[in-house]
Amino acid sequence: MLTFIGLGLYDERSITVAGQQALRNADRAYAEFYTSKLIGTTVPALESYHDVEIEVRDRAGVEQHPEDILEAAEEEDVAFLTAGDTMISTTHVDLRLRAHDRGIETRVIHGVTAQTATSALTGLQNYRFGKATTLPFPYAHGADGLPASVTGTIDDNRADGLHTVVYLDIKVGHERIKEDEYMTADVGADLLAEEYPDLVGVVVARAGSPDPLVEAGTMTDLADRTFGDPLHLLVIPGECHLLEADALVELAGADRDALNVA
Amino acid sequence: MLTFIGLGLYDERSITVAGQQALRNADRAYAEFYTSKLIGTTVPALESYHDVEIEVRDRAGVEQHPEDILEAAEEEDVAFLTAGDTMISTTHVDLRLRAHDRGIETRVIHGVTAQTATSALTGLQNYRFGKATTLPFPYAHGADGLPASVTGTIDDNRADGLHTVVYLDIKVGHERIKEDEYMTADVGADLLAEEYPDLVGVVVARAGSPDPLVEAGTMTDLADRTFGDPLHLLVIPGECHLLEADALVELAGADRDALNVA
Repeated sequence: MLTFIGLGLYDERSITVAGQQALRNADRAYAEFYTSKLIGTTVPALESYHDVEIEVRDRAGVEQHPEDILEAAEEEDVAFLTAGDTMISTTHVDLRLRAHDRGIETRVIHGVTAQTATSALTGLQNYRFGKATTLPFPYAHGADGLPASVTGTIDDNRADGLHTVVYLDIKVGHERIKEDEYMTADVGADLLAEEYPDLVGVVVARAGSPDPLVEAGTMTDLADRTFGDPLHLLVIPGECHLLEADALVELAGADRDALNVA
Repeated sequence: MLTFIGLGLYDERSITVAGQQALRNADRAYAEFYTSKLIGTTVPALESYHDVEIEVRDRAGVEQHPEDILEAAEEEDVAFLTAGDTMISTTHVDLRLRAHDRGIETRVIHGVTAQTATSALTGLQNYRFGKATTLPFPYAHGADGLPASVTGTIDDNRADGLHTVVYLDIKVGHERIKEDEYMTADVGADLLAEEYPDLVGVVVARAGSPDPLVEAGTMTDLADRTFGDPLHLLVIPGECHLLEADALVELAGADRDALNVA
């Protein structure tokens, strides 16, 4: 049995109770933190809190060499842990399908995602978001200006009156960098300000933590502020219902006149 | 202090560990189950498992008469509970803003949502979903045929190659019905088959439970099947990446030739 368990967004207590029970009952636990990370805890703290040993795998150890994970899951109850919800990433869908091919039973115990938390913290309604996008570090996409995937998504959603989540790049264990690197929202806003200097964005920092921050402003404004510890993301509101606008004004300090209120 | 706590999707163990701790430490707990419900538990079971008393409010008791909730939160630590994530619904954003207006500190402890679970269970990638929509009971929207909000959303997303979540109507404590009513996926598919008989849909039933079901077929096919206990929803896949198509074939029994594979 291979159980994919989402650890949620912040620390060792962000997992569900069902997830915690499955983790404690597992014979063996693997984890990866290259797709995202829990900022509020460490692997030893997770191990101690949940009374388990966790073997952390890098990208190659999950994507290229998952054989021993699969072999273990043929014999024992194996837990595979990630931040957020495990199945948000194609990487882990691939692992699940490989397990299926071997006749290994799989299950998923979901975790809270940044997408959920973003909607909840901003007051923007979940069914009014369009497609999401990720803003890469300039060195990672290797060209001048914003990638077409980012501007295309923002422009299409705005044309349809929909909100856009802009995830900010994370590089963990990347060959080009010495230590983990998280794009902060001021850097993201500065990149977006090239094309959209006066567009209103909403920074969501530390979603799922005890001290989340939600702050609105134009991209030019946001580029000059700081938002504290990671993880950060940006939301670009589309057309806002009255209550959504109220929430952005009240919870994020948005300028009502700068919003597109339906 | 007013703490909004999402109970997640299924039973008393779907809450996060952080949510459970906050609930146990609260002086008073309110809940509502008219926006959604936990199918795998009851209020007495929740009370017993978490060792708290829970006062359940109907829609009027949250939206029209929240004064005593707010008064309690001025003096004590009050928890407000819902299925999924509390802030997904505008109803509760309104309650949060009312609390803010009174100077009451608020926080949100997120829960797993159907949106997250849908992406995870189908293998369809979260950033490739467009806007979501809700399919109402025909008596609730009061006109023949599918509402334009539903067909418009599906058509726009398909034109952009994006996946669509179609939530199915829930009526709890509605004046027109005697008992709680959940639209099942066969009924939803039958309604959608009027316009889209050959379109491939994916049923997700009991997301977040220990026995979720994921099944693909044309709307005409799905209308003739049964999917067991609620809650159900439907996904309409847009253009699929190869791995998304693999997942739908492997996990949902989709006919690969009927999918739109990029």
